[in-house]
Amino acid sequence: MASLSSFLLLLILLFAITLASSAASVKTYFPGIFQSSLKKNDKNLKPKIPYETHYFPQNLDHFTFQPKSYKIFYQKYLLNSQYWQKGAPIFVYTGNEGDIDWFAANTGFLLDIAPKFHALLVFIEHRFYGESKPFGKNSYKSAKTLGYLNSQQALADFAVLIRSLKQNLSSETSPVVVFGGSYGGMLAAWFRLKYPHTAIGALASSAPILQFDGITPWSSFYDAVSQDFKDASLNCYEVINSSWTELESISKEGLAELSRDFRACKKVSSIYSARDWLWEAFVYTAMMNYPTESNFMKPLPAYPVKEMCKIIDESSPGASKLSRVFEAASLYYNYSQAEKCFELEDETDDHGLSGWNWQACTEMVMPMTVSNKSMFPPSSFSYKEFADDCMKNYGVRPRQHWITTEFGGKNIEQVLKRFGSNIIFSNGLQDPWSRGSVLKNISGSLVALVAEKGAHHTDLRPATGKDPDWLIEQRKQEVEIIHKWISDYYLDMKQE
Amino acid sequence: MASLSSFLLLLILLFAITLASSAASVKTYFPGIFQSSLKKNDKNLKPKIPYETHYFPQNLDHFTFQPKSYKIFYQKYLLNSQYWQKGAPIFVYTGNEGDIDWFAANTGFLLDIAPKFHALLVFIEHRFYGESKPFGKNSYKSAKTLGYLNSQQALADFAVLIRSLKQNLSSETSPVVVFGGSYGGMLAAWFRLKYPHTAIGALASSAPILQFDGITPWSSFYDAVSQDFKDASLNCYEVINSSWTELESISKEGLAELSRDFRACKKVSSIYSARDWLWEAFVYTAMMNYPTESNFMKPLPAYPVKEMCKIIDESSPGASKLSRVFEAASLYYNYSQAEKCFELEDETDDHGLSGWNWQACTEMVMPMTVSNKSMFPPSSFSYKEFADDCMKNYGVRPRQHWITTEFGGKNIEQVLKRFGSNIIFSNGLQDPWSRGSVLKNISGSLVALVAEKGAHHTDLRPATGKDPDWLIEQRKQEVEIIHKWISDYYLDMKQE
Repeated sequence: MASLSSFLLLLILLFAITLASSAASVKTYFPGIFQSSLKKNDKNLKPKIPYETHYFPQNLDHFTFQPKSYKIFYQKYLLNSQYWQKGAPIFVYTGNEGDIDWFAANTGFLLDIAPKFHALLVFIEHRFYGESKPFGKNSYKSAKTLGYLNSQQALADFAVLIRSLKQNLSSETSPVVVFGGSYGGMLAAWFRLKYPHTAIGALASSAPILQFDGITPWSSFYDAVSQDFKDASLNCYEVINSSWTELESISKEGLAELSRDFRACKKVSSIYSARDWLWEAFVYTAMMNYPTESNFMKPLPAYPVKEMCKIIDESSPGASKLSRVFEAASLYYNYSQAEKCFELEDETDDHGLSGWNWQACTEMVMPMTVSNKSMFPPSSFSYKEFADDCMKNYGVRPRQHWITTEFGGKNIEQVLKRFGSNIIFSNGLQDPWSRGSVLKNISGSLVALVAEKGAHHTDLRPATGKDPDWLIEQRKQEVEIIHKWISDYYLDMKQE
Repeated sequence: MASLSSFLLLLILLFAITLASSAASVKTYFPGIFQSSLKKNDKNLKPKIPYETHYFPQNLDHFTFQPKSYKIFYQKYLLNSQYWQKGAPIFVYTGNEGDIDWFAANTGFLLDIAPKFHALLVFIEHRFYGESKPFGKNSYKSAKTLGYLNSQQALADFAVLIRSLKQNLSSETSPVVVFGGSYGGMLAAWFRLKYPHTAIGALASSAPILQFDGITPWSSFYDAVSQDFKDASLNCYEVINSSWTELESISKEGLAELSRDFRACKKVSSIYSARDWLWEAFVYTAMMNYPTESNFMKPLPAYPVKEMCKIIDESSPGASKLSRVFEAASLYYNYSQAEKCFELEDETDDHGLSGWNWQACTEMVMPMTVSNKSMFPPSSFSYKEFADDCMKNYGVRPRQHWITTEFGGKNIEQVLKRFGSNIIFSNGLQDPWSRGSVLKNISGSLVALVAEKGAHHTDLRPATGKDPDWLIEQRKQEVEIIHKWISDYYLDMKQE
């Protein structure tokens, strides 16, 4: 089995998946699952949201001063001022790797707390995503254009935009708090660290800033996904774990039957399509293991891992393992019961969201392996092969140590114990990304809020009537801490 | 007088002078005084120093990922390991706008304290200066090459080089403290703020990080120079102040006589050459108003401002004001008595140090005016004209607000009161740059050490047997504070 998938590499952040899959020959295919998921759920991309859309003229390159560095592109941002009073706080969502409307629709927490703070809400789209493409349709053409897509340029964009916005609103003394989830959470934490003069604090939810450079073991992500399933049901975990052998025993002649069994819209060309399709379902269901019904990647019931395992555990004992995991995965792909068949091999990118593949191949190097504690087929990671693939695809090599050189992460507790302040690292332990996040308090004002039953930035989702007590409590703590940052700020301002 | 010099703009940092001089027509000339000063004092450039020279393969552009961003250039750095023990501290000088040998020779403080700390000393040359030119002789050709010369790239260079050096020395746990004077001091302070994971603390000497964006009044620099002379002697100040009228009354026909009076090697073509020559002498003498004999820009006696004023005060009462200020300026240009005549119009750039003009025209926008409190001819500042000149010279416009957007500075006390740690801002009040520096403690570990009689980074100079008590005391405090940072670091490490 190892020989078949030894170069399988999964890099999944919020949802952006870079799949370097392989059969006998090492074939890296970009992109992966993110795009196809979204495609089937278009309505998520254009949600009705209570925000005004604006566009800010942004500099292409903040860190060089060549004539072309001054090229202007239009960065999209969303505003809600219905609760705001001049001088009151500004809450900024530091957008991540996708359309900002989508993040705004799934970050109801900000709207929920805005009235209490009389806060202005601003959601800033990350450069090269959504509508904020510096070179329009040519933005992803090559490294020459993509070269400007990275986290440091994005942070500088945020700083420039916020400064200008405050000036235009004549509200320069308004305290700014930044919020973000997943990669957006990493950006929020880094923004507070690098631009303390712009943001007085950051809520960094599910932000795996320690997923780099070997700080967190490479196997942790898939170990965590597997642990979620094991915790739900040992039998479920074992069925999934042994289903891969069944799948891999299918010969080329068996693909027609596999396609029928998996209700594929079109006959699949490889068993690896089925493998990746299942894989995606388990990973995203673990990440979205929310305590209430949700519709982020796809519609899902409350605690969907438990529901998936129920399907496996309650299926007829005579059924094959593969058919049982297929039924479980169908919960992810078809909870709404709307799908007549499944697109197992849909790799088109209709939404221009594949920028994450570029980021993963340059700065965001987060090696992942699958250990034998996991329920996935074992897989190793070769930096050399990864780098060669990036070179082949983009013409540049990754900068393996860059993120920790630029943002730190190693010995973070020692480094930040006496430096920095006002960051909340919130995490849910159901979320496999939590293993690469800050889970312990670093100092009195660099704090970790950890919810045992939480998933991928559960706290940022809109409140519902069905939220469990622990979630209500987590959000309450966040509001109290943010409230203290703001009070301190106004107090310090009076004393000047 | 205002009409003659209304567009005079002086940007002087450590010593890099950008002189946008003007007569009736607005003529901006780059560069200015820095180069000519150095040229006459070549031996300063190649001092004998107890350092080994090394070259580090550095990335051209840390903040984009285009194929050409990966171009390697060789960054010079100096090492002294004679006092070092593995695991002991590493003291890094964050090089500024010139040849690193020269800074090393004039930063004896590090050599003086190295034995006490068993410290490794590293002096890193700033990109585009000295031998560290990414495009060799073509480095200053145009904005296309110069575009990569800026402070953020320089800071990233330091971070990358330090990381690699520690790894190569197998001394990754060594605490790093950064030191710098003037622009190098700004870089040291900013490095601690932006790369706390790389440096545990910074000694930022004479670092005018508040000289931007109107935080410090534009007239402060020349007011401070003038105050130095006024404090030495009111008569001296008044003679200098009224000498400019005499100079400006000289007609074209009088230039031959002026050249003779000023002992010019070649007849001067404009009275403005004489004006700038005098101007330079007063400015640099105020900056180098050291308590002991020194030889930084040029050889000077102890407390040279007082000596200059003595010359003016003691000259024959019948002499013209212009001849008296000429004699005073000669102290600066000819303390060693070696000059037979003076090169008043030497603008050649033999040392490739003119990069500061570029930095001043892009990011380092520090407007200066001359007020009527000053002893210099009044002068205003027009941002538009300045920007137009930059456009004309380099093809790019300055980013007026960039430094404060990227590094902060506004309301610094409020911003850093609850953020950051371990920076000493040391200053001498004789230094005109001190007005744009941090002169008050911000918090328990962001502290200001202010010496009333100190000049431009006096504390970083090598100790001499004649150092006054206040200087000995200032350095002692610095050593104690740095010692505490290091002890805390080792203590925290043990507790991990």
